[in-house]
Amino acid sequence: MARSAIRLGELAAEFGCELVGDPQVTVSRVATLSDANGGGLSFFVNKAYRDQLRSTSAAAVLLRPADAGDCPVNALLAEDPYLAFAKIAGLLHPQPDLVAGTHASAVISPSATIAANVQLSAHSTIGDDVTIEADVFVGPGVVIGPRCRIGKASRLLANVTIVQDAEIGERCIIHPGAVIGSDGFGNAQSDKGWVKVPQVGRVLIGNDVEIGANAAIDRGALDDTVIEDGVRLDNLVHLAHNVRIGQHTALAAQNGVAGSTTIGKRCMFGGQVGIDGHLKICDDVIVGGKSVLTKDIMEPGYYVGTFSAEKDKEWKRKVARFRRLEGLVSRVRILEKKADDE
Amino acid sequence: MARSAIRLGELAAEFGCELVGDPQVTVSRVATLSDANGGGLSFFVNKAYRDQLRSTSAAAVLLRPADAGDCPVNALLAEDPYLAFAKIAGLLHPQPDLVAGTHASAVISPSATIAANVQLSAHSTIGDDVTIEADVFVGPGVVIGPRCRIGKASRLLANVTIVQDAEIGERCIIHPGAVIGSDGFGNAQSDKGWVKVPQVGRVLIGNDVEIGANAAIDRGALDDTVIEDGVRLDNLVHLAHNVRIGQHTALAAQNGVAGSTTIGKRCMFGGQVGIDGHLKICDDVIVGGKSVLTKDIMEPGYYVGTFSAEKDKEWKRKVARFRRLEGLVSRVRILEKKADDE
Amino acid sequence: MARSAIRLGELAAEFGCELVGDPQVTVSRVATLSDANGGGLSFFVNKAYRDQLRSTSAAAVLLRPADAGDCPVNALLAEDPYLAFAKIAGLLHPQPDLVAGTHASAVISPSATIAANVQLSAHSTIGDDVTIEADVFVGPGVVIGPRCRIGKASRLLANVTIVQDAEIGERCIIHPGAVIGSDGFGNAQSDKGWVKVPQVGRVLIGNDVEIGANAAIDRGALDDTVIEDGVRLDNLVHLAHNVRIGQHTALAAQNGVAGSTTIGKRCMFGGQVGIDGHLKICDDVIVGGKSVLTKDIMEPGYYVGTFSAEKDKEWKRKVARFRRLEGLVSRVRILEKKADDE
Repeated sequence: MARSAIRLGELAAEFGCELVGDPQVTVSRVATLSDANGGGLSFFVNKAYRDQLRSTSAAAVLLRPADAGDCPVNALLAEDPYLAFAKIAGLLHPQPDLVAGTHASAVISPSATIAANVQLSAHSTIGDDVTIEADVFVGPGVVIGPRCRIGKASRLLANVTIVQDAEIGERCIIHPGAVIGSDGFGNAQSDKGWVKVPQVGRVLIGNDVEIGANAAIDRGALDDTVIEDGVRLDNLVHLAHNVRIGQHTALAAQNGVAGSTTIGKRCMFGGQVGIDGHLKICDDVIVGGKSVLTKDIMEPGYYVGTFSAEKDKEWKRKVARFRRLEGLVSRVRILEKKADDE
Repeated sequence: MARSAIRLGELAAEFGCELVGDPQVTVSRVATLSDANGGGLSFFVNKAYRDQLRSTSAAAVLLRPADAGDCPVNALLAEDPYLAFAKIAGLLHPQPDLVAGTHASAVISPSATIAANVQLSAHSTIGDDVTIEADVFVGPGVVIGPRCRIGKASRLLANVTIVQDAEIGERCIIHPGAVIGSDGFGNAQSDKGWVKVPQVGRVLIGNDVEIGANAAIDRGALDDTVIEDGVRLDNLVHLAHNVRIGQHTALAAQNGVAGSTTIGKRCMFGGQVGIDGHLKICDDVIVGGKSVLTKDIMEPGYYVGTFSAEKDKEWKRKVARFRRLEGLVSRVRILEKKADDE
Repeated sequence: MARSAIRLGELAAEFGCELVGDPQVTVSRVATLSDANGGGLSFFVNKAYRDQLRSTSAAAVLLRPADAGDCPVNALLAEDPYLAFAKIAGLLHPQPDLVAGTHASAVISPSATIAANVQLSAHSTIGDDVTIEADVFVGPGVVIGPRCRIGKASRLLANVTIVQDAEIGERCIIHPGAVIGSDGFGNAQSDKGWVKVPQVGRVLIGNDVEIGANAAIDRGALDDTVIEDGVRLDNLVHLAHNVRIGQHTALAAQNGVAGSTTIGKRCMFGGQVGIDGHLKICDDVIVGGKSVLTKDIMEPGYYVGTFSAEKDKEWKRKVARFRRLEGLVSRVRILEKKADDE
């Protein structure tokens, strides 16, 4: 899938790396240290792989200046080798080219507006009053419901559903099976059971957002659900109605965010975190995987609240103690009293 | 999307509210207090929004009689303003009209029975011996497998899969990407690995049920998986084979219910709850988000079992204490003994 | 759906059971003890159902020799009745027959290679350089992206997406809505936000693997994501890039495995388990539902780390004690000191 070979000299100049080696050597793909034979570019950050670095036959390796001594091949020195690697990899392995045009099986509402250089793939369905800007890729089986706007150069991969009333910015990637704009979970209790509360808000997604496979993002109830620029949501993430996610925040797989919660900028949540509704989480909050957030967080930092699994027998003993903690506290109180009486 | 404007006098009469204001004023849409200009109907329940109430320019606000004094515009007084709001919103924002008919790209088995006034959208697939009753909406990309029945006025939104042998009641809404009737996780251990246990049960869904985006509901192994009338399942919920969910129970997003568990009526589970298999949960049980249920619950009430995330350092200190709880108990025992000896 | 009736004598011979009863009696379907009238074959393992066994009108029941005395009908005696049941059920209820051929609405790249006896269903899309081996079932709405290989007799059910560069072995079953080969969550931090790290690895899936509805399996970043023979993944499971799952391991619904973690053979994880990245879990590890794994596991056994939900008031009291555990420890220390001083 590599686009073409690039000379190391060119890469060093473009990405501000120092090259220790031959500027005429070319790289054509990225690879691990152990599998980079024949034109592969690799990187070294994690010292656990130092042995692999020492024996690599990569065409070149991106690494920190301090590690250059262990590199047996051409070295591209960078303060942040992983970031440089990401950028060069994006050059060597760009998103697949568009094949502009509308597949014969695509079904497009006459009221939709489709810009130039858009690819509408097999079995895609474009609803009423949809606007699709230039350079957009609409994959096979994608459904875009009424009144949506898809920004320039965004990519909706196979079987994505944009339900309705959603605006997606530029250069976004929506992975297969994701659903954007489904009704929020709005229900009022009556003595005859639940009464559905119509959901009439939109989903507004900024630029450069990536949303994972089979994620589910609800439309707002009255106001909108908002995902700001540069956000990353991993597979199977759930955002309820009226959630707001700040710029460049990343939520790992299977996070669930309840209604009307606002998460700030540059936050990073591990997988399977659960976030209560109506919370405010400030900028720069990091949350350990599987944690539960039940209160506002006003201070940046690292938050966590889970017990790691351990051998069943040991865990059970501790849990039993925990269940009787109340009793232990009473016993300590009695002892304190006795000691005081003496 | 509003259907039409309705006079406040009419709403007051139909929904049993007391109107304080002009019965000739009309509302045409629902909106938040701060965004209800020009014919918007809002509601006030949560006192955190009292300032917004005082400055609203809504056409009318639904609220409790006790809050009427703070309402600067037409007021519709109701004991349960949110319920009244839900009902009126349903009138102002009904489900989209059906466009009855079969899209040219739909593929329909000759053995399927399709009632009048059904919409079969683009790229939908209707399998053998399927029965679809009147007023049903089948969205784009929906697949209905063999031997399913879809009840009157139900709506299967885009890319839903009803796998096979499922019965869906009347007025249900199945949100995009949901899968109903997939095989349960039935595997018998052998010395050569797992042997699949064929799953031959059905999924039976009552009336007025709503199932969230990308949810996954397995068919029964031998008996059926059953979802009773009025149940609400949020996005990404998993129900395993032979689960039974009682009337009007609501499970928030990402709940997972293991096989053969029965949950009673009118239960409400927060998000990401995990429920073991073969349990019986009685009626009227409320469970906090992310909890784990491992035992039967025989008594209505509120159940919970999670720790909220806190600052990493503080949490780690507590966890370390917890890990050594056994030792603390021994120390207390020694003290008690000493004190007794004196 | 039963294929045909089979005589008990034949079953006893083929599956090595001892028959207590009439070898000429036939069974045509599997059923529960209470619902097996008219040719039904049932099984008895769980003693909770002994009353149902005593009153069953099944044509025959599979059970352990020790339970034969309670069986009022024909008995097939087996040391592992559930395993024998699984095998016989597979005979009575085989996977649906293929209807070989390509539906008129299927869209197939001219560079794809499709073997004989393959069923390509309505609205399926087969990409460039795809290879589909014999006896494969491709369901309605399935999308297979470029450079994938689907092994002999595998079944991709409705609306599955195989994104690209995936190899699926023989006799696999991929349930509806599952996504295989989506990009991993690879992001490098820059001062302008996240930079996407192109994901260029494959997904390699062995033989006899089953993957649940709406599961999401990412392709590798550089190396491959690997699922070995006989693995079982339940609904809504997430595997991140470069995860490896060993032979015959079973992960229940909503498990999430972070990047580069390796799980051994014959492991069994309950539902909603969260597994950190870069871990090594050895063979034969069993993990309780909802647990969190944060460290390598080097020793087979049963691991767990969750608290079961309990009544809100009792739980809150314990949590409050937990939050003050630090203080309790100090109090005990003081008492110890005092006691020592005496």
